[in-house]
Amino acid sequence: MGIRRNTMTTTLITGGTLVSATGRSEADVLIDGETITAVLAPGSNLLGTDVAASVDTVIDATGKYVIPGGIDAHTHMELPFGGTAAIDTFETGTRAAAWGGTTSIIDFAVQRYGERVQDGLAAWHAKAEGNCAIDYGFHQIIGGVDEDALAAMPGLIDEGITSFKLFMAYPGVFYSDDAQVLKAMQVSRDTGLLTMMHAENGPVIDVLAAQLVAEGKTDPYFHGIARAWQMEEEATHRAIMIANLTGAPLYVVHVSAKQAVEQLAAARDKGQNVFGETCPQYLYLSLEEQLGASSEEWGRFEGAKWVCSTPLRSRAEGHQDHMWQALRTNDLQMVSTDHCPFCMKDQKELGLGDFRAIPNGIGSIEHRMDLMYQGVVTGKITLERWVELTSTTPARMFGLYGRKGVIQPGADGDVVVYDPNGHTSIGVGKTHHMNMDHSAWEGFEIDGHVDTVLSRGKVIVDGGQYLGAKGDGRFVKRGLSQYLT
Amino acid sequence: MGIRRNTMTTTLITGGTLVSATGRSEADVLIDGETITAVLAPGSNLLGTDVAASVDTVIDATGKYVIPGGIDAHTHMELPFGGTAAIDTFETGTRAAAWGGTTSIIDFAVQRYGERVQDGLAAWHAKAEGNCAIDYGFHQIIGGVDEDALAAMPGLIDEGITSFKLFMAYPGVFYSDDAQVLKAMQVSRDTGLLTMMHAENGPVIDVLAAQLVAEGKTDPYFHGIARAWQMEEEATHRAIMIANLTGAPLYVVHVSAKQAVEQLAAARDKGQNVFGETCPQYLYLSLEEQLGASSEEWGRFEGAKWVCSTPLRSRAEGHQDHMWQALRTNDLQMVSTDHCPFCMKDQKELGLGDFRAIPNGIGSIEHRMDLMYQGVVTGKITLERWVELTSTTPARMFGLYGRKGVIQPGADGDVVVYDPNGHTSIGVGKTHHMNMDHSAWEGFEIDGHVDTVLSRGKVIVDGGQYLGAKGDGRFVKRGLSQYLT
Amino acid sequence: MGIRRNTMTTTLITGGTLVSATGRSEADVLIDGETITAVLAPGSNLLGTDVAASVDTVIDATGKYVIPGGIDAHTHMELPFGGTAAIDTFETGTRAAAWGGTTSIIDFAVQRYGERVQDGLAAWHAKAEGNCAIDYGFHQIIGGVDEDALAAMPGLIDEGITSFKLFMAYPGVFYSDDAQVLKAMQVSRDTGLLTMMHAENGPVIDVLAAQLVAEGKTDPYFHGIARAWQMEEEATHRAIMIANLTGAPLYVVHVSAKQAVEQLAAARDKGQNVFGETCPQYLYLSLEEQLGASSEEWGRFEGAKWVCSTPLRSRAEGHQDHMWQALRTNDLQMVSTDHCPFCMKDQKELGLGDFRAIPNGIGSIEHRMDLMYQGVVTGKITLERWVELTSTTPARMFGLYGRKGVIQPGADGDVVVYDPNGHTSIGVGKTHHMNMDHSAWEGFEIDGHVDTVLSRGKVIVDGGQYLGAKGDGRFVKRGLSQYLT
Amino acid sequence: MGIRRNTMTTTLITGGTLVSATGRSEADVLIDGETITAVLAPGSNLLGTDVAASVDTVIDATGKYVIPGGIDAHTHMELPFGGTAAIDTFETGTRAAAWGGTTSIIDFAVQRYGERVQDGLAAWHAKAEGNCAIDYGFHQIIGGVDEDALAAMPGLIDEGITSFKLFMAYPGVFYSDDAQVLKAMQVSRDTGLLTMMHAENGPVIDVLAAQLVAEGKTDPYFHGIARAWQMEEEATHRAIMIANLTGAPLYVVHVSAKQAVEQLAAARDKGQNVFGETCPQYLYLSLEEQLGASSEEWGRFEGAKWVCSTPLRSRAEGHQDHMWQALRTNDLQMVSTDHCPFCMKDQKELGLGDFRAIPNGIGSIEHRMDLMYQGVVTGKITLERWVELTSTTPARMFGLYGRKGVIQPGADGDVVVYDPNGHTSIGVGKTHHMNMDHSAWEGFEIDGHVDTVLSRGKVIVDGGQYLGAKGDGRFVKRGLSQYLT
Repeated sequence: MGIRRNTMTTTLITGGTLVSATGRSEADVLIDGETITAVLAPGSNLLGTDVAASVDTVIDATGKYVIPGGIDAHTHMELPFGGTAAIDTFETGTRAAAWGGTTSIIDFAVQRYGERVQDGLAAWHAKAEGNCAIDYGFHQIIGGVDEDALAAMPGLIDEGITSFKLFMAYPGVFYSDDAQVLKAMQVSRDTGLLTMMHAENGPVIDVLAAQLVAEGKTDPYFHGIARAWQMEEEATHRAIMIANLTGAPLYVVHVSAKQAVEQLAAARDKGQNVFGETCPQYLYLSLEEQLGASSEEWGRFEGAKWVCSTPLRSRAEGHQDHMWQALRTNDLQMVSTDHCPFCMKDQKELGLGDFRAIPNGIGSIEHRMDLMYQGVVTGKITLERWVELTSTTPARMFGLYGRKGVIQPGADGDVVVYDPNGHTSIGVGKTHHMNMDHSAWEGFEIDGHVDTVLSRGKVIVDGGQYLGAKGDGRFVKRGLSQYLT
Repeated sequence: MGIRRNTMTTTLITGGTLVSATGRSEADVLIDGETITAVLAPGSNLLGTDVAASVDTVIDATGKYVIPGGIDAHTHMELPFGGTAAIDTFETGTRAAAWGGTTSIIDFAVQRYGERVQDGLAAWHAKAEGNCAIDYGFHQIIGGVDEDALAAMPGLIDEGITSFKLFMAYPGVFYSDDAQVLKAMQVSRDTGLLTMMHAENGPVIDVLAAQLVAEGKTDPYFHGIARAWQMEEEATHRAIMIANLTGAPLYVVHVSAKQAVEQLAAARDKGQNVFGETCPQYLYLSLEEQLGASSEEWGRFEGAKWVCSTPLRSRAEGHQDHMWQALRTNDLQMVSTDHCPFCMKDQKELGLGDFRAIPNGIGSIEHRMDLMYQGVVTGKITLERWVELTSTTPARMFGLYGRKGVIQPGADGDVVVYDPNGHTSIGVGKTHHMNMDHSAWEGFEIDGHVDTVLSRGKVIVDGGQYLGAKGDGRFVKRGLSQYLT
Repeated sequence: MGIRRNTMTTTLITGGTLVSATGRSEADVLIDGETITAVLAPGSNLLGTDVAASVDTVIDATGKYVIPGGIDAHTHMELPFGGTAAIDTFETGTRAAAWGGTTSIIDFAVQRYGERVQDGLAAWHAKAEGNCAIDYGFHQIIGGVDEDALAAMPGLIDEGITSFKLFMAYPGVFYSDDAQVLKAMQVSRDTGLLTMMHAENGPVIDVLAAQLVAEGKTDPYFHGIARAWQMEEEATHRAIMIANLTGAPLYVVHVSAKQAVEQLAAARDKGQNVFGETCPQYLYLSLEEQLGASSEEWGRFEGAKWVCSTPLRSRAEGHQDHMWQALRTNDLQMVSTDHCPFCMKDQKELGLGDFRAIPNGIGSIEHRMDLMYQGVVTGKITLERWVELTSTTPARMFGLYGRKGVIQPGADGDVVVYDPNGHTSIGVGKTHHMNMDHSAWEGFEIDGHVDTVLSRGKVIVDGGQYLGAKGDGRFVKRGLSQYLT
Repeated sequence: MGIRRNTMTTTLITGGTLVSATGRSEADVLIDGETITAVLAPGSNLLGTDVAASVDTVIDATGKYVIPGGIDAHTHMELPFGGTAAIDTFETGTRAAAWGGTTSIIDFAVQRYGERVQDGLAAWHAKAEGNCAIDYGFHQIIGGVDEDALAAMPGLIDEGITSFKLFMAYPGVFYSDDAQVLKAMQVSRDTGLLTMMHAENGPVIDVLAAQLVAEGKTDPYFHGIARAWQMEEEATHRAIMIANLTGAPLYVVHVSAKQAVEQLAAARDKGQNVFGETCPQYLYLSLEEQLGASSEEWGRFEGAKWVCSTPLRSRAEGHQDHMWQALRTNDLQMVSTDHCPFCMKDQKELGLGDFRAIPNGIGSIEHRMDLMYQGVVTGKITLERWVELTSTTPARMFGLYGRKGVIQPGADGDVVVYDPNGHTSIGVGKTHHMNMDHSAWEGFEIDGHVDTVLSRGKVIVDGGQYLGAKGDGRFVKRGLSQYLT
């Protein structure tokens, strides 16, 4: 099948408005086989050649935006967690991504205490290979920073794995203490591997959670109370200072507390190489809504669908508004999903009676591009910033730029035609292709629509049809981050 | 001559590395007449057409950078100041710009107390028209904010003038008091005109200067003492707060004090639409050097060549390092020159015995691209950031993007081929095409070279020859700023 | 009468709890004539002498607090303003002060453009002399900073006037531009005179006010809209920076915006000698209440009773809470009243139909000690901080310490016996001894009571009786400020 | 002996200038037995009694300062550390304190993992009882936060122990992890016990130290390199955030990094109850001097005399200046010594070849009052602030006020007569009464002199003679902190 795609069929996307991170242009895109070969003045009769007449396929994008395919740099397919595993496989998760205009993901391979890094990476390759609808890369979770792991890390670069993630939360699972963080960051400084950090003070949070449960406060809502913003701010600052001490670059994942953003902004204002992503849930959902959540089936446990870490934050405290602002001012640089889906049935319900046992995670991979586009509609970000946050910056940050994240000659033919006059209703039975038995985004309405999705030149979504196949997606070796200086 | 340029000769720039604000690619650029029509995979045999063989001119850029032509958004050709006038005419100044890889300038039309805005603009059109080597636009200085001027401002947008500049310095010349600033900013908020601000507390500075002169401290160095950083920080904050009150966007020109940058950064971190530019002199030169300046001809008055406002700042206080850092972290967004050249002879020497009479200004228009490229060489900024600071952001900030600031179909053929293996020695008798009798940059060595410059498809500099002509450059109407949100 | 007081009658205040700025003690206070001569262990049989039996008068303070008399460092008796004058004379105002436990005031002598400083001071001496119930000093308003005034300022120190006040508001009345502020602050730096500042950007505010009135927004409420917090923050920062430039100490009066406090705190954290006072109205009253104010007699104009400058601020924005916090953390150092009383009838009503014509001011001199004590009751400040904010710091800040602001041998016998088990109901016809026809504090209830007030050893208030006389109070020459380093 | 002291001999200190935290007065102090009973106008003929003639002892303080005895709230007598123990016993250390004008210490009782808090306290009582020259109290080190310790903590209040100290440094010795810090701070919040914190990130520092040693960087200087300011700033912020989360008050000991001060100041500006002390070594000594230290006997190991934790900081980075500034602006509230003396011989030399084995500590108890007075002489702090930093605030902070820290009736007769015209030369063989074989302060010259020291009414130092006796000092139960709100 891969071979058939290499028979050099040519495609012209014509009549649309190309949107890049810096602006727009009326231009056509020519794709030869898997690769973009030209960006052309519209309707080109190029040096005497009628381009449209010369290609195999013409896609009419008139009145629509033509953007580089979305890159979701934070997903967890099939992640084992809390005695179960994230319910999307690489097959189902990447297919849902494609439906939503995302043409690349970067998932997390996992190494744990006592495991070899190479084995963890191999295991994730095995899960993904031949199963993905779109291209994929890996970050490496280093869940057990020991001498073996430290020695293995530099070798990851040759494997195309140029970033690794540490956890300041989840003692006993993925947790690294500060001494371990230091040592890993020293490798980061020496090699250029980018340090990604889950920045929450796990040891404190775990005590608070246990105290809440002991007081009978077991509902999902208390997950967010236990994971107080103070402990996200604290860990963010701690990570920044260890990075400062070592000179390592730092990327903080799933930032949800405004005070954590302030720490990042302060560090950047002093010239430090620190970056942050947030996720759609921290832009749209709130602790107050989780407190109010209720359903016939689940009662107050309904709020479990929104249990994720970092948790939803209080709207009254202004976190959501601050996240949007930070995206606008570049105090945060990207939006990923932290896609980590669990069903209510059999999975989330493990935490009935004790929120600590609720698997942490929300599934959003299908809706990220739409949810962020809605921010354009409502004036929170510009069209250009939409592309930058969801595609161009992820590519630059994680060493994919050139192949991904931009429409230019030489780049992979990962292109999305987005219709600003279309509409998308999110919800189970509507646009839901993820594996969960519910949607965290049920009822959200989007004033736009993903019309056509090309992955390396192949149309995989069009006209409401999925046209791709399992295995279309290939592993992509990533280069070092640009650090966006 | 303009007619000949429209005969649709075609040019291919091939073999080079295109550098944009976000990344690099190996690609060829096809220009048809004045306009870029395609960006192509290198050496393209495009759909059967041998592109290189089909064009009139082929420019070999192998091993070189191909970048959008520089945009200098802050120049003062022929500006009347202090009883004399800036020595570069639109002819000489824009030709020097072309030599240095700058293909657009935005100069400042001037309105003063009692003058009509329309008349000021007309006067500057008259000076520039038919004289320029490269394209040009205008900002409007509103030196007399009265009811007439306020009423005239909205009409500037139709004239393609989408930004205006106020002065918190120079009482009696261009100065606006806070009530005037307020009123002008209200127009800015209502219309989208961008407010540009010279942010120094002029009334205080003038007292300090008079006191210094009264104490016999008349050397050029005391210009910088009088214009203390505190009064730049103060005015910057004041402008920010009036902008905050009104909701106007704000762009602060020629920022030189690190504390002023901190004010801008703090405002941006709170979500306010404020921006800042710095200039090469604030990155490279210092008050200490001005204090030490001496020559046989001028003695200690030699320092007059570096008298500009805002002034050079103390290196010991760290301002220069902080400017570089701010360019990297995007606390400052652009680099312009504030090109305002005066000869030592007959002009600067007006201030012999009283630094207050020294015409304020440094000429740098020819060297901005080189000086900033040297920042790439020394690792202070990336290649992409170089392009962003000198071309792409100026275009976005000032409503030129699409035509200028980017290499894409539909854009003007303003392209520079820059040789990273070339070398440039700055100095009179070496690379000096500006009208001054000296260079503020004498002795600076650059590890790179502007090889070829195209302005709207026409090669105007190549092989060490100036191939353009007076009048090549046209007035460009600008759209509203993107504000870079 | 003054003579009779010098006949060396002796008084012992016994059984109470002395409260100082740093703590409490059970101790008796012996006053000999006008002066405290000893602080003694309670019930002392001192070296064989039964103290209580040896004195002329014994005041039993059992169960009560014994504190140094209050010092109100910001009052405006008989101040001409807006075509009328503050309605309290030195006689009525200081008597009301005495009723409320305040035993010293510092009022403002006024110099205006074209007037001699010495004449202004003489005029205020004439108003006060022989009329006051308690001791008084003067600050000097320099409303016209010209060469004469600058030359006169150092001489104020010998007159016992060690602080002067400038206005960044009220153009055409008291306003100083920045050049004038600079020159006055240079005198401050050179002499030790403390610069006091009304920090609001008057020129901007006046435009905003005129625009509001032009839009028909004439109610008292719009006074607070026109005087936006941004313009208090701005002016505060500007004053700080000019002070920074000169090295002058700075004291900002009637701070009401939390952002202004943040500017003060930031400057102090950098080591600058800046200080701020707030007033009871900024702790208790709000813009929202002013918006809602209404009465049968005055309708919506009722809000005029709370028209003061700086204005009441929005409670929703958190200014009041921040003022209390700043008092606690010492980001603000003192509480004065800015007592400037006007009647609704004939005075405030000048502004019917145009809030700009409402005389600015609230009368609080009688209630400051009570209102601040209520902050002790509600846990916002400690008992010690109450004394510090209302007496000890004012004395230190303004060069009265030793004679005033502390209970120690050698100090004036200015002592208040305050009953924490008493009660005070504020309102016209209840405890109102000020000259206004209304109370800005109508309906406030205080869980404490001023029982006994001694001024230089003479009991002037006791048992609900005023026992003093016009002329009891004398002018006090002040020394230089301690600056509280 | 204690009995003889209770025979109610009377003492009058006459003719001096009393200095308190808020000001000065010319007054006499009458002490009856152990207790101050009156503060009197100088030369009093009090109600007919000639006071001087009526007392047993008259101390002439003419021309001198009379201040409350110094309180050193941070000492470690006989502390076991690193295989040895601090060389001053309670006997020698408190006698040296007395020589230097300090009349109270608060030492640290120690509980470690597996030990009972009560046992630790009892052990320290046993060491101190009957041995001290001056009064003493204890803080409790909780080196092993477990359920037993948490349960025991509230009971400390009845024992007069109202503060406890945790360590974020020294893993395996005193270290508490964040979960333990949380639990202990919850007790602090619930009981009013004040949390004291050694704020350095021990786990990171220990890795850095091991890496340095592995690189052969074993000299004392590298102690300061390993203990980087980033890890003090980090831990300070972390402690603040856990305190913020719990609502506990926080007192950070031995602050030496300016960035740590900035964290404290920022928290205070937001209204949080956080406090900090610094020590003379962080005001006067620097890392650069430690690098340069050398002697004939010890060579480059001479720098070991200045090995303490937190470490000396770089003068080039401005830490020392910032500490002085913070003392002035009240961003730091107190000065203690962290007196923890070790000899070079047999003790410090344990770390020859490995700085990690050098016992951490400097002995300063004898010189604190003098060293801080020198800050008055050089204009860094005022005379009042000297008293506040060294006596009044320690008393208020740690629940001793009323008995200690102030000269007022009812207070203990702990008084120092300090001669501003005297002189003190610090050094072994000169004024050295501590047990170390060297002085960290060798060669320091002080423009003042401790003349006379009274402890509870007894003259223990006078005329260059020590007149006290072992056991003069008694244990003092402390009340809860005032928190200085």
